[in-house]
Amino acid sequence: MKLVKVHITLKEGVLDPQGKAVQGSLNTLGYENIEEVRVGKYLELTVADDANIEHQIEEMCSKLLANPVIENYKYTVEEGVTQ
Amino acid sequence: MKLVKVHITLKEGVLDPQGKAVQGSLNTLGYENIEEVRVGKYLELTVADDANIEHQIEEMCSKLLANPVIENYKYTVEEGVTQ
Repeated sequence: MKLVKVHITLKEGVLDPQGKAVQGSLNTLGYENIEEVRVGKYLELTVADDANIEHQIEEMCSKLLANPVIENYKYTVEEGVTQ
Repeated sequence: MKLVKVHITLKEGVLDPQGKAVQGSLNTLGYENIEEVRVGKYLELTVADDANIEHQIEEMCSKLLANPVIENYKYTVEEGVTQ
């Protein structure tokens, strides 16, 4: 069993209205030193062992989980999950 | 300037319908070795330097960004962001 951690973030230059809204709220609530907020996704996948897991993850990220036109993704694969 | 990376994840035992949906889709699309998916949020905050930044971040996470009843959060503070 492996634990795959995937981070999906908007590419630089892509407008992030959700992040802007969070930033605005934080500023309004008194946290005036917050200069930018970018909101992304974080997925944890528990995956049964497989020979070509890296290839599979790469394929899933680029085709299904992230939109490569506007999003970047990166992932780490961790060994030996016990759950 | 500091870059704060915040991970917000659902606590263990809390139902994650979004994760279940992603898992179902991946399984249907042929990735049958995906056993569990948990979806969380990932925020990157660019913060102007401040003496008690750690305290501020802790407060923001526990009161505003995450719902501590059902979510866990963790954050890292990185120095010297140039953007």
